[in-house]
Amino acid sequence: MRVVRVQYAGKTFYATLQPDHVMCLNKDMGLNDPIGLDQIALLPPVAPSKIICAALNYHAHAEEMGKTVPDEPVLFFKPPSAVIGAWQPIVLPVQSFRVDYEGELAVVIGKPCRKVNATQAAEYIFGYTCANDITARDLQTKDGQYGRAKGFDTFAPIGPWIETEVPDPSELTLITRVNGQVRQNGNTGDMIFSAWELLSFASHVMTLLPGDVILTGTPPGIGPLHAGDEVQVEISDVALLTNTVIVEQDHVEGYSVIQ
Amino acid sequence: MRVVRVQYAGKTFYATLQPDHVMCLNKDMGLNDPIGLDQIALLPPVAPSKIICAALNYHAHAEEMGKTVPDEPVLFFKPPSAVIGAWQPIVLPVQSFRVDYEGELAVVIGKPCRKVNATQAAEYIFGYTCANDITARDLQTKDGQYGRAKGFDTFAPIGPWIETEVPDPSELTLITRVNGQVRQNGNTGDMIFSAWELLSFASHVMTLLPGDVILTGTPPGIGPLHAGDEVQVEISDVALLTNTVIVEQDHVEGYSVIQ
Repeated sequence: MRVVRVQYAGKTFYATLQPDHVMCLNKDMGLNDPIGLDQIALLPPVAPSKIICAALNYHAHAEEMGKTVPDEPVLFFKPPSAVIGAWQPIVLPVQSFRVDYEGELAVVIGKPCRKVNATQAAEYIFGYTCANDITARDLQTKDGQYGRAKGFDTFAPIGPWIETEVPDPSELTLITRVNGQVRQNGNTGDMIFSAWELLSFASHVMTLLPGDVILTGTPPGIGPLHAGDEVQVEISDVALLTNTVIVEQDHVEGYSVIQ
Repeated sequence: MRVVRVQYAGKTFYATLQPDHVMCLNKDMGLNDPIGLDQIALLPPVAPSKIICAALNYHAHAEEMGKTVPDEPVLFFKPPSAVIGAWQPIVLPVQSFRVDYEGELAVVIGKPCRKVNATQAAEYIFGYTCANDITARDLQTKDGQYGRAKGFDTFAPIGPWIETEVPDPSELTLITRVNGQVRQNGNTGDMIFSAWELLSFASHVMTLLPGDVILTGTPPGIGPLHAGDEVQVEISDVALLTNTVIVEQDHVEGYSVIQ
């Protein structure tokens, strides 16, 4: 099942996505289903209280970055203000000379949880979607901490929908394309820590809440984006996330308050 | 004015704090003011969408850590799930052998903002409060990124109130005590980047929203906490934040879902 978050008739709600319409998941709202796709505004599929990210979680990406494989996940956060949905523009900030794509599988939490074992993790997952962990590579190197480099507005494209039926998140193909050219071609089976292990690890540190997102790291092949590019993250049996890239001057007032 | 966030009669609201009562700030709620302090439950004074933290922002603390003074602020995030209020226990997790206090001045954002100059920053600040940037020092060193070490549930004590009348946040005394003994005795005038400069810097990266919090770094004198300790962060003309410390086994089911 594909779940989207939409705006329609002044209301925000979750809905199932069909080829040409959506069906509201909250029947108490009394909306007249089906609602045509041309009548809705598609929002990012989640409004997370936190976005937990795993640094360096693919064997081949660790090699590419010249780093040793960690014995435990290394976590950092992206702020909710960075979230945009599919087809919204990634804005290149004036502070950076090198902004990279990083295609990633995103886990969406379905139930509050704390101290969950990896074998139980699937019970707490609502579904999976595509994400792009946009990174100002020069600022990442300069700062050491990733707060700024990965925290700019628009640096967390997520979506377009949440796929709730993914039997095994450890055997998915992940492809990132820029202007149609394949730049990353990985498989989630190459993860150092699986999606379920990451959820378990994070839940032993902090309480995970519904809508929270775990970004599971990127495969090798990272590279820069430029104004005018179209970047796509496609994960087999999950989703296809497309975003455009603009420079900061292009934006109109208010672009950054997306949620 | 001291502003608190409270629960009373099943409702959550902001109120002004008086010596023996509170006055609800939302008159539309139709509550019968004044409400005695013995009738309310005090909550953390903020429910932030993000907690932006400055690493290494006091000259003397940079020296203490053997680090060079950065030419720009270095930012990281703590998750909202880490927030607790005054008199709630800091829980020492089993994963760490060394958990430290870090007394800090916290800035509470009052209006949405983006790309604000330091000279305009005060207009966007609702007020100031005390915070303790609790840190698992061993995990901070091991991980490099601070997501885990500073992200455990209960690792962001904030409060107890927001002081809205602070003419100049760069001349405040900040004292941290453990069991009544002074461990940190700093002044916000020793900050490398002032509270206003940090707001400006962060707002050039991301949209700041009402209730968001900026932790402005800690003065020298950091040190460990142990079960049974009482830790206090006192900032002149702002507030006094007191928390106890327990080990993880002590907690009862559900302690971690504090908000």
